[in-house]
Amino acid sequence: MRVPRRPRVYLAGPDVFLPESHAWAARRAAICAGFGLEGVSPLDPLPDSPPEWLGLPDWQRIFHHNEAHIRRCDAVIANLTPFRGPSADAGTVYEVGFARALGLPVFGYACVGADLLARTRAAFGPSVAADAAEDWWDGDGLLVENFGLSENLMIAGGILASGGLLLAEDAPGSDRWRDLTVFERCVAAVAARLGVPSAAG
Amino acid sequence: MRVPRRPRVYLAGPDVFLPESHAWAARRAAICAGFGLEGVSPLDPLPDSPPEWLGLPDWQRIFHHNEAHIRRCDAVIANLTPFRGPSADAGTVYEVGFARALGLPVFGYACVGADLLARTRAAFGPSVAADAAEDWWDGDGLLVENFGLSENLMIAGGILASGGLLLAEDAPGSDRWRDLTVFERCVAAVAARLGVPSAAG
Repeated sequence: MRVPRRPRVYLAGPDVFLPESHAWAARRAAICAGFGLEGVSPLDPLPDSPPEWLGLPDWQRIFHHNEAHIRRCDAVIANLTPFRGPSADAGTVYEVGFARALGLPVFGYACVGADLLARTRAAFGPSVAADAAEDWWDGDGLLVENFGLSENLMIAGGILASGGLLLAEDAPGSDRWRDLTVFERCVAAVAARLGVPSAAG
Repeated sequence: MRVPRRPRVYLAGPDVFLPESHAWAARRAAICAGFGLEGVSPLDPLPDSPPEWLGLPDWQRIFHHNEAHIRRCDAVIANLTPFRGPSADAGTVYEVGFARALGLPVFGYACVGADLLARTRAAFGPSVAADAAEDWWDGDGLLVENFGLSENLMIAGGILASGGLLLAEDAPGSDRWRDLTVFERCVAAVAARLGVPSAAG
């Protein structure tokens, strides 16, 4: 019997900045495997790195490596947990837009349930204020998006249009970078959406 | 004599959140025209909106409108000025990744010259600290990228790989959202890179 290849899912997110990031990547890959998916970390080696990358500065080599990983995957799961401010990590968001234009289904999750306006107000306090029309403005005088979304509409829109979904809820644990509950729920949703039979099946 | 179409350049950025955003878009378009480029704002109407968008919620309609604009353009100029934290606006970063995967040349500019580590330290103070190996960590225990770049390496790498360039310098004016000096320098660089004869020529 031919065993079909498990769908390969690129695991985008600032998790790569954790100490012991390889151990965290292995935990995430194990969760993916439990749902019949192959989780691909940006930290994983690439089987076919072109030799010309060797001469590049580290940051360019990492960049090409990550883009190549995404091009070899069937879907993306992005950790959009707020990172150093109200929004997601910029590198992760780049990868969401990149994958969307490639036509991959993109799934996102955030380990914080509050919407973008609530998070922006929490981060910047009373410098974020509403006018008489109930539009919200930040301290620089720029409008704050208020669609009740978890992220900027381009990200929420790209994920939806790609056929993915965006899951945002407070992680039960106290450390939103190490609690894998929401990630696991997202992986389950990806497996269901991609029609993958469960590993237990 | 056939007049070739001017290159169409999508102007990504959180400028759309300024009050009088249409007036600011017109000023930016005028600068582009001076360099032989057609500046396309996300606020510009789209000639061919599919009728099925009419039934969508506002945020989804805006999303599809913006993606469609990018697909109709020849290049992107992204305002990557730090936005509500050390990094650029998430919606803009999405569009950078999206345009990169479409194969468009992407140009970025930021009206702040300090690099990402310096900006992260300025934003979060002593909670961002170096260890004995001189690696920098934020208050959540996540590594801070330290390649001397203006932005996360995916953004800097995507712009470079696309054939564009990333220009980061302090705007001479006091309001980094309204000073168009760095934008104009970026537009000049785009015109030169795309081989556009100057409008004065």
